[in-house]
Amino acid sequence: MAGFDPEGVRVIACDIFGTTVDWYGGVAAQAAGVFAGVEVELDAGMFTNEWRDMYLPAMRRVREGEREWAYLDTLHRESLDALLESHGVAGKFDDAARARLVRAWHLLPAWPEAAAGLARLRRRYTLAALSNGGFALLTRLVKAAELPFDCIVSAELARSYKPGPEVYRTAARLLDVEPAEVLMVACHGWDIDGARAAGLRTAFVERPREKGPRRAADRAADTESDLAAGDFNALADLLGC
Amino acid sequence: MAGFDPEGVRVIACDIFGTTVDWYGGVAAQAAGVFAGVEVELDAGMFTNEWRDMYLPAMRRVREGEREWAYLDTLHRESLDALLESHGVAGKFDDAARARLVRAWHLLPAWPEAAAGLARLRRRYTLAALSNGGFALLTRLVKAAELPFDCIVSAELARSYKPGPEVYRTAARLLDVEPAEVLMVACHGWDIDGARAAGLRTAFVERPREKGPRRAADRAADTESDLAAGDFNALADLLGC
Repeated sequence: MAGFDPEGVRVIACDIFGTTVDWYGGVAAQAAGVFAGVEVELDAGMFTNEWRDMYLPAMRRVREGEREWAYLDTLHRESLDALLESHGVAGKFDDAARARLVRAWHLLPAWPEAAAGLARLRRRYTLAALSNGGFALLTRLVKAAELPFDCIVSAELARSYKPGPEVYRTAARLLDVEPAEVLMVACHGWDIDGARAAGLRTAFVERPREKGPRRAADRAADTESDLAAGDFNALADLLGC
Repeated sequence: MAGFDPEGVRVIACDIFGTTVDWYGGVAAQAAGVFAGVEVELDAGMFTNEWRDMYLPAMRRVREGEREWAYLDTLHRESLDALLESHGVAGKFDDAARARLVRAWHLLPAWPEAAAGLARLRRRYTLAALSNGGFALLTRLVKAAELPFDCIVSAELARSYKPGPEVYRTAARLLDVEPAEVLMVACHGWDIDGARAAGLRTAFVERPREKGPRRAADRAADTESDLAAGDFNALADLLGC
């Protein structure tokens, strides 16, 4: 926390997938329902991990200009198609079943303390969602999960993806503040690193169960950040909210 | 209401200045304070009307390509500078006083029933602010007025201004719906006309005091719209929310 002054923060930007909502639990539960419907025996939890593994590489191809900008839904659908193929079950999933799986990422449960902790932060700061999810996806997800954001900022508005610096800087520009006046909150080292590189302040919120029971989540100790907290209430405590 | 089916609406987009907040009362009150501070005798209400009169022409110059896109704050500042000059009081207002006047548009009181009526609409529909105010201005204004929107959509995201069709269509595109699935709510004929031309459904909410005591407000009877209501609660009644 050396050199960190909460008074210099005007906006708190929060990552969504993993940081405020449980993508693993939400997608695995919905995938299990789809798999049962099409009578395919796949481990929904493992499948969810494998699907998410394809997320960063897919976005990197966009960020590095290998392909034109594409919605997260499009990237999810492409990686889903490849994953079903690799499991030899592509023939079992028609377009409607695939669409239901892609839409699973639109409705995910909030972590238990997230809404209450965010509400505390919102009393003092402008509170923005800042995610690689599309604007429509985020609006739907945040509404259904009843997370109290002041505004939705999607990487779509920068036509790039985190950790590309233009995404973080677009958020600052849209909210008419300097990058250093934004505190980025995330549970992933790559997101914290990207925000730091773009000039933002950072807070690591640990989500040990983020990747389910089989994978280890990122840990605050492995990443340089201005603040680290166990959840949003602990972050609100650190900021005196 | 002939041919209007509320079931076909998925998003309600609300104009802000005049429709959900009282710009006349809010700006006039803040301007009176600034005028007193710099010891200038100007009728703050009349000044506010004159300033707002310069709003549509300034935005039209942007829409019609006479000048590059500029933030609403910039347009407000330019028209303010010209207005102070025309009143022969330009020398009395330093940069800080002018900045305070421009910022008056960032903090405006909600109409009494707006928050409650919007909350009813939000239970069934995705509720978006859709205004010519900048993204930062709208985020600040909506937060301070405690209006329960699901997301902020500014004309800034289209780098144009209403009633340009690209603003309405950008809102639909960002929210991943067809224009005809968006119901635009506004108290101005020009906004309703623009939304209709872009393919949106429309609801006129009358705000008879919108322009203060000296000016007549737009009336629903003079504009073709799908719905017309006296306020947001009446609109919620019409939509069965």
